[in-house]
Amino acid sequence: MTNEIPDIVIGRLPIYLRALTRMATTGDQITTSSHELGEQLGISSAQIRKDLSHFGEFGKQGTGYHINYLIDQLSQILHLERAWPVVLVGAGHIGHALANYSGFRPRGFSINWIFDNDPDKVGQAVNGLTVQGMGKLKGLIKQEKVRVAILAVPVSAAQKTADMLIEYGIKAILSYAPINLTVPEGIHVRYSDPVIQLQQMTFYLESEE
Amino acid sequence: MTNEIPDIVIGRLPIYLRALTRMATTGDQITTSSHELGEQLGISSAQIRKDLSHFGEFGKQGTGYHINYLIDQLSQILHLERAWPVVLVGAGHIGHALANYSGFRPRGFSINWIFDNDPDKVGQAVNGLTVQGMGKLKGLIKQEKVRVAILAVPVSAAQKTADMLIEYGIKAILSYAPINLTVPEGIHVRYSDPVIQLQQMTFYLESEE
Repeated sequence: MTNEIPDIVIGRLPIYLRALTRMATTGDQITTSSHELGEQLGISSAQIRKDLSHFGEFGKQGTGYHINYLIDQLSQILHLERAWPVVLVGAGHIGHALANYSGFRPRGFSINWIFDNDPDKVGQAVNGLTVQGMGKLKGLIKQEKVRVAILAVPVSAAQKTADMLIEYGIKAILSYAPINLTVPEGIHVRYSDPVIQLQQMTFYLESEE
Repeated sequence: MTNEIPDIVIGRLPIYLRALTRMATTGDQITTSSHELGEQLGISSAQIRKDLSHFGEFGKQGTGYHINYLIDQLSQILHLERAWPVVLVGAGHIGHALANYSGFRPRGFSINWIFDNDPDKVGQAVNGLTVQGMGKLKGLIKQEKVRVAILAVPVSAAQKTADMLIEYGIKAILSYAPINLTVPEGIHVRYSDPVIQLQQMTFYLESEE
């Protein structure tokens, strides 16, 4: 079934999950509708119904979706029943911000280790974690069967570090280095580059002024 | 012309620009091809040619693209001839990382001001900038005609702060708060949420193990 569902649909599920979780924690409501969800997210209700229909029948005509039930189902679909242990590589400014971010654990991830190749950083404490040297990375990933990594190293080290992570067993990388990584089939990569996102908006700006 | 070009095409231009800039700064080559660019980016060469053809004729059959010329053209298309002044709201961990990031200026942006509503943070120095109180935000945006903002405040303050920024004249917001913002027509928003990106990958993981 997995192979039949477009990536773009999978890409929207976490956004639905985030909105539903917010409804569940801030409001009194027990149910919602594709219409209400769509209004909040700027996505058409038809699109939401179609996306969810790939995975089964979650709502009833007229009564909508039971919020907590849909949260459970989406969490299962996205494999978030357990917290994924995450290794963070790079203890610079971005690495520090990520290690201090409290938003990972409630949503299925736990940064359990932080590594850096800078001897000055190794041994430092970052939000309760001790920065470890790269020599220990291989053993850690293999022993703990870590599958998810966050890469927050400079551009110059990004490809080399990604190659290492993949060799050791990492299957999914979220990279903060502003460079496209070359990875083998079956390895998943997402990028976070604020400049790309800003440039995607400035295209639209000048003509308006 | 702007209205005819799909957002998804605009979204790829900064990625082309980033790859071309890297070619120009790290290699000896003067020209490249849609094939080479596509290989690096995991995008088909036909897609690249089609995307670029929206804006004119940049390459020649057989000789490919002149890298520096294409960089100039893409920079103009994306309105990056000048550095956009950016106001950063939020001087927490993420705000600090962003204020310390040296990758903005070479690519068309300059974080010139940082604001926070926490009296303990106001007056602090962050990478040469002094954190200012929110009371000065309106005057600054209006006087300096700032159009681009980065929002790095907690979820609870995100919508309220976005509303304020928009009221004062901001047209493009890059938000790090994990919540969907409601904004008027004509205002551009992009989101950075590492958990969404991780969840988009874990869907594919468990079945492989």
